[in-house]
Amino acid sequence: MMCTTSYDGSDFHGFSRQPRLRTVQGEIERVLSVVFDCPIETIAASRTDAGVHARAQVFHFTLPHQRVAVEKLPYICSRQLPDDIVLEKAVVVDDGFDARRSVLWKTYRYTIALGPIQDVFIRRYALYEHQMLDVDAMQAAALHLMGEHDFTSFCTARAQQVSKVRTVHRIHFAYDHQARRLHIDITGNGFLHNMVRIIVGTLLNVGRGKLKSIDVLHILESRDRRTAGQTAPARGLTLWHIEYPCINLLLDDA
Amino acid sequence: MMCTTSYDGSDFHGFSRQPRLRTVQGEIERVLSVVFDCPIETIAASRTDAGVHARAQVFHFTLPHQRVAVEKLPYICSRQLPDDIVLEKAVVVDDGFDARRSVLWKTYRYTIALGPIQDVFIRRYALYEHQMLDVDAMQAAALHLMGEHDFTSFCTARAQQVSKVRTVHRIHFAYDHQARRLHIDITGNGFLHNMVRIIVGTLLNVGRGKLKSIDVLHILESRDRRTAGQTAPARGLTLWHIEYPCINLLLDDA
Repeated sequence: MMCTTSYDGSDFHGFSRQPRLRTVQGEIERVLSVVFDCPIETIAASRTDAGVHARAQVFHFTLPHQRVAVEKLPYICSRQLPDDIVLEKAVVVDDGFDARRSVLWKTYRYTIALGPIQDVFIRRYALYEHQMLDVDAMQAAALHLMGEHDFTSFCTARAQQVSKVRTVHRIHFAYDHQARRLHIDITGNGFLHNMVRIIVGTLLNVGRGKLKSIDVLHILESRDRRTAGQTAPARGLTLWHIEYPCINLLLDDA
Repeated sequence: MMCTTSYDGSDFHGFSRQPRLRTVQGEIERVLSVVFDCPIETIAASRTDAGVHARAQVFHFTLPHQRVAVEKLPYICSRQLPDDIVLEKAVVVDDGFDARRSVLWKTYRYTIALGPIQDVFIRRYALYEHQMLDVDAMQAAALHLMGEHDFTSFCTARAQQVSKVRTVHRIHFAYDHQARRLHIDITGNGFLHNMVRIIVGTLLNVGRGKLKSIDVLHILESRDRRTAGQTAPARGLTLWHIEYPCINLLLDDA
């Protein structure tokens, strides 16, 4: 089974199950285990951190038996899940599908609310920035990060991965004038721990005029986490989209 | 002083101060009393119920002294207020202004999220309705409620007000196709307790095909709360706008 889920990460200790802590995976596996009346373990595309949201997380699990109508799974599970998790879609896929390994690329969206006064209704889903940002300079800086690079500077120092080389396909800026929100969508073949949030924290320093666009190239080349900006707060980050080969056709039919 | 405030009502026991309960007014008065270093009491335009939000609540209070720069009040207060309340604007008005008595009209917005699967990111700010609604029938029903009427049928039975006569100036429906959200904006010179939520609950019964549009006229004429629909949940309701004579000019300059 392949499933998509959306969740408000505000009140979770991240996605991955952890003993005695409220996690998204813990809640989903608890409900699936009740629905199928046997223990269910899931594998997800992305292990989002505490406070990070998902519009479309993807996970898979092995169907233990045929006694549950899988087309009704979203309705059955969403009724039993807490109200900050929704199971959006569930489709049967062939055994070769792996929610983590089959990923082609992922997109994360970081949202920044601009203006003199905070908007109380999106405070859980955006970083509030009271000064105007130089978005042109941020876009120029982002160009240096596109393509295949060693992203050691943009990765939490305690990260376990051996290779820090990743490919960033696209960094797209969209400014909603009416709502005064800046969305930064970052698409890549994979992300190191805190990579998107450190990229955003560094681009924010460019937008605030503390760094020049070219400085971001030097930060990248230094391969030293200490040269980059602060890790932007989790609440502004949403796992937005995950692309798989072919599978999206199946999803659209669901 | 006249102030506007927005708040997420989800985690409050309503607007009005109550001993030992977390209320919006209680939080605002606590912070103002610290800022001015003396007890401050506020009078607000609308005493919103538990769970009801406000985009633009208005209140006034008597300035105790000149030792605080009032133009900085929104910034000073918002830093000290919890993150689910924002003080938007503060302007000096003449002594004749009364946030409650000077109201010309108020607009409340009720938001309904439609679709097969709930949107996790607006669950605190909308009623979720999984079946499609007959919005044309709801609009036809709403026409019967426009104008001056005795709204006893649309008022909680325990309400204290002697006169149940109010004037509804406008009931406006806006459907956002992309986001699949229906907004119902109700404007009137005043509202009885739970009046907007009972109107919405009754219109929902029309939208679901349980009532005909003309039934709403009979419910209005019956002057009996038991004939109307259920009180719609608080979370979908937002105090949207309050109109005063002239004062809005001052606000726009703030």
